Amino acid sequence: MTSETPPLLNPPALRTTLGGDYYVSDAVFAAEQERIFEASWICAVRCSDLATPGRFQKVQVGRESVLLVRGRDGLLRAFLNICRHRGAQLCTEPEGTVRRYFRCPYHSWTYGLDGKLTAAPNLAALTDETGAPIDRYRYGLVPVALTEWLGYAWVCLLDTPPPFDDVTAEATRALGDPDAINRYGIGGLDVGRRIVYDVAANWKLIVENFMECYHCSSIHPELVGVLPEFSRGVAAQASDGAGAEFGSHIEGFTVDGAAGFDRLPGITDEQDRRYYAVTVKPTVFVNLVPDHIIFHRMYPLSPVRTVVECDWLYTADVLASGRDVSASVELFHRVNRQDFDACERTQPSMTSRAYRHGGVLVPTEHHIASFHEWVVSRLDER
Amino acid sequence: MTSETPPLLNPPALRTTLGGDYYVSDAVFAAEQERIFEASWICAVRCSDLATPGRFQKVQVGRESVLLVRGRDGLLRAFLNICRHRGAQLCTEPEGTVRRYFRCPYHSWTYGLDGKLTAAPNLAALTDETGAPIDRYRYGLVPVALTEWLGYAWVCLLDTPPPFDDVTAEATRALGDPDAINRYGIGGLDVGRRIVYDVAANWKLIVENFMECYHCSSIHPELVGVLPEFSRGVAAQASDGAGAEFGSHIEGFTVDGAAGFDRLPGITDEQDRRYYAVTVKPTVFVNLVPDHIIFHRMYPLSPVRTVVECDWLYTADVLASGRDVSASVELFHRVNRQDFDACERTQPSMTSRAYRHGGVLVPTEHHIASFHEWVVSRLDER
Amino acid sequence: MTSETPPLLNPPALRTTLGGDYYVSDAVFAAEQERIFEASWICAVRCSDLATPGRFQKVQVGRESVLLVRGRDGLLRAFLNICRHRGAQLCTEPEGTVRRYFRCPYHSWTYGLDGKLTAAPNLAALTDETGAPIDRYRYGLVPVALTEWLGYAWVCLLDTPPPFDDVTAEATRALGDPDAINRYGIGGLDVGRRIVYDVAANWKLIVENFMECYHCSSIHPELVGVLPEFSRGVAAQASDGAGAEFGSHIEGFTVDGAAGFDRLPGITDEQDRRYYAVTVKPTVFVNLVPDHIIFHRMYPLSPVRTVVECDWLYTADVLASGRDVSASVELFHRVNRQDFDACERTQPSMTSRAYRHGGVLVPTEHHIASFHEWVVSRLDER
Repeated sequence: MTSETPPLLNPPALRTTLGGDYYVSDAVFAAEQERIFEASWICAVRCSDLATPGRFQKVQVGRESVLLVRGRDGLLRAFLNICRHRGAQLCTEPEGTVRRYFRCPYHSWTYGLDGKLTAAPNLAALTDETGAPIDRYRYGLVPVALTEWLGYAWVCLLDTPPPFDDVTAEATRALGDPDAINRYGIGGLDVGRRIVYDVAANWKLIVENFMECYHCSSIHPELVGVLPEFSRGVAAQASDGAGAEFGSHIEGFTVDGAAGFDRLPGITDEQDRRYYAVTVKPTVFVNLVPDHIIFHRMYPLSPVRTVVECDWLYTADVLASGRDVSASVELFHRVNRQDFDACERTQPSMTSRAYRHGGVLVPTEHHIASFHEWVVSRLDER
Repeated sequence: MTSETPPLLNPPALRTTLGGDYYVSDAVFAAEQERIFEASWICAVRCSDLATPGRFQKVQVGRESVLLVRGRDGLLRAFLNICRHRGAQLCTEPEGTVRRYFRCPYHSWTYGLDGKLTAAPNLAALTDETGAPIDRYRYGLVPVALTEWLGYAWVCLLDTPPPFDDVTAEATRALGDPDAINRYGIGGLDVGRRIVYDVAANWKLIVENFMECYHCSSIHPELVGVLPEFSRGVAAQASDGAGAEFGSHIEGFTVDGAAGFDRLPGITDEQDRRYYAVTVKPTVFVNLVPDHIIFHRMYPLSPVRTVVECDWLYTADVLASGRDVSASVELFHRVNRQDFDACERTQPSMTSRAYRHGGVLVPTEHHIASFHEWVVSRLDER
Repeated sequence: MTSETPPLLNPPALRTTLGGDYYVSDAVFAAEQERIFEASWICAVRCSDLATPGRFQKVQVGRESVLLVRGRDGLLRAFLNICRHRGAQLCTEPEGTVRRYFRCPYHSWTYGLDGKLTAAPNLAALTDETGAPIDRYRYGLVPVALTEWLGYAWVCLLDTPPPFDDVTAEATRALGDPDAINRYGIGGLDVGRRIVYDVAANWKLIVENFMECYHCSSIHPELVGVLPEFSRGVAAQASDGAGAEFGSHIEGFTVDGAAGFDRLPGITDEQDRRYYAVTVKPTVFVNLVPDHIIFHRMYPLSPVRTVVECDWLYTADVLASGRDVSASVELFHRVNRQDFDACERTQPSMTSRAYRHGGVLVPTEHHIASFHEWVVSRLDER
């Protein structure tokens, strides 16, 4: 197989996508909220954004407002952002710092950073249905399961969350090796730039777009300039463990191919000068290059609107040195805008009779079908 | 019982509120429109706002636009604001004055101030299904029942309205005496100030907020300054006939406790230096203090939006004297804003799984449960 | 019958209109989209707006975005505006020019002006489900039926459109003669002015308004000035073949009755000095006067919003002469605004209990009932 020949491992027949209704229906989106976003591990915040005790952030997960806070014991915890008394939102600001407590401004019910109800007017006189003093945890903040991985806090709204290994397995499978992602030391990196995109498209169009590279030669001139094999239309994600090689004259993963920074300490020679991409369903994309990481989180707000938050992560040394990261930021920022424009151009057609039974996947897009099968299987559960 | 001990007449166990769906569901709101707002006596306009013949005002009642107009015979009447011919809105301005007629601008069907169809192109030639000339009242404006009380016109969209005594009975019960409210002479007072608030919350959250004072010490510093017993969290409405006493150094019901105006002529010594509050379901709150009245009317526009119109009423003498009413207006204007902020902070949580079965009522809020029972009983009717 | 006596051919009893729900319900509008707008011949573009090869325009028909384009062979064609691969909109601009192809910017699937799939990355390697190379027309743009009449392109989304004669028959019936409309030579006229109106009303209110003249004396002073018989309230459309005569002192169909232009070459003496109006269901109105044509197309966007595009058509000679058309444009522009204001005033009442079973039609409006019967019969089909 020469570099001119695309690796068509699949039979070349066209396959169909999901029907258009999956991308616009309120009923489908409500089912996705319940069975996907409120039933999966969702990447919520960068842990280092909540570095000190009392530092909190409010995040939308499915239909719930979730409050993440660093305790005085140094642990991160997550709770539903709602007072147990009459339901006022505890925090209305997107982020901030409290000293020791969250105090609901409506009736002054007050909760410790571990969620315990610590004070309320006449609290001592309140009883439960048996006449006993009320349990301070039963009437404390409703806890949400939380795990840390890759330097992010992941939360799950289920009472009994699925094993977190299911999440890490995706990255293992995609990179062909359980240690491959760990070598980048993502948890120890710092956020050099964060850009938030408000995209007028269904979240699944954004996933599908990220998974394939058949569009790369059409809309990503800068990316194809750095990764010339992308001009063949085969995504790094199309086969497990595959990374796309930098062009021979390319010095770094930057908008003009100029040199980036020192390669991350842990990565192997095989990982050097390569771009890897991982989709961690349902809402995370991880892009791995030798000297930095581009990390996407999505917040699906409606069938036709998705907010995407993108972090560019570098070593503390690079950021402390004051070196300019904008050439590497600019490359994927352009890719993001090119991709989201394409998704927004596609969304309006989802209601067309021509898309009633979906569009077609060419062979280099066939792996998207597994994403569609996963969505359908989640919605069919129960 | 000392002033330090709250009068816990109810057993102290927590009770639950309505489930969150009651505050956001379109289906619940549609049922409320039909079975509550379009089936109750609704306070529509201050009669003195329509003082002269031909003066009219347009008011939203449930899903209907209602036209109130003073006749040339001096009587106030209410009609649906819709031409009987092809349905054009008769009046599109919120208020105004006509001489003798409402003339539909579309096809010139013309109605007297008593609703009778008085003119139309070719009117003499029109017949009903029997071939007889058409009945000028059958094709006149659709009348709406109207009663005056407390200087306001109350309307009911039902063909057979419930007895108006059901409305006045609430005030009687709340104040412990049929004459208590009459002594204030509310019908004879004038509007010194009117402020309209657009609140992003369900109307029932606003009622619940008005009914209890457990929040007073948290959000109403000025009000508690004037009525120190409110710091205990017990609302004047929690027990029938109870009024909250002014603090010993307080001279008037003003934002800084400074003197107000002469007490209203009819009130008793017991009513002096006290604040009383009455909820007249579904949409009116009356606040009684010795020298003025604060009167709230609500217009629920959607499950999540309610417009509240608040009148401050004084004697004609006070207003004619040119004395400054702003210190008394400012007190309840602050209370209003504090309350509506709290309601707006609560509304977003109504969709949370943590509020699926509602929040809890502490003992000093237990009387709110009777409001919930009333709502449920109205929705369950038929 | 003197000119003072309206020609009441119908028995004078009032008839009822459609109930208010027909004008606001999402379900009714969805049924109208499917069974009326997506199942009828819809007037889409003025052919001369797409005069040269590669010139295209995007038009909303029912729920579909339709692309009309002039081929290099000189023919006009229509297609669904959606790429067959993954559904991106081919054209997002309302109009423009391409050279030979539409190229989808997402993955570069490329279509000829006849819809054939002409190029795509790796196209030669793609196969259908049988393993055969894909059919370039099966995966070409989805064609939409198109017919030209009166100088406009009419399209129909049905696979098997109804006979176009059904469309022309309406004009024949209304004007009493198959040749009557042809004599105006509308296809050969040019657009002298185009105005687009965004109307906050259901499309059927606009049709009903256009069909009757009972409102003319109330809201159209300029029109009645030119056509004095309209003061009697009888529409030209009320009886087949009837045209309204210009007033004796009127020189032309202009806002002030001043002279217009030479009469169109083909029309008869009987057609001179007369105004004729034709409703071509569902969305076209044609107004015929001796020296120009006023042509309305409607685009119903929601139950409560309709865009109306109005063309004023003149001979090429008139437009080439540089003579001022504004006095004739101004007349019907005022009529349009007066009518659309009336429709917008009527729309809000459609939800009223007083319109639950509709309003009433006076005898000079009775012919509107046939429009209502047509709507109901279309919605009842299947």
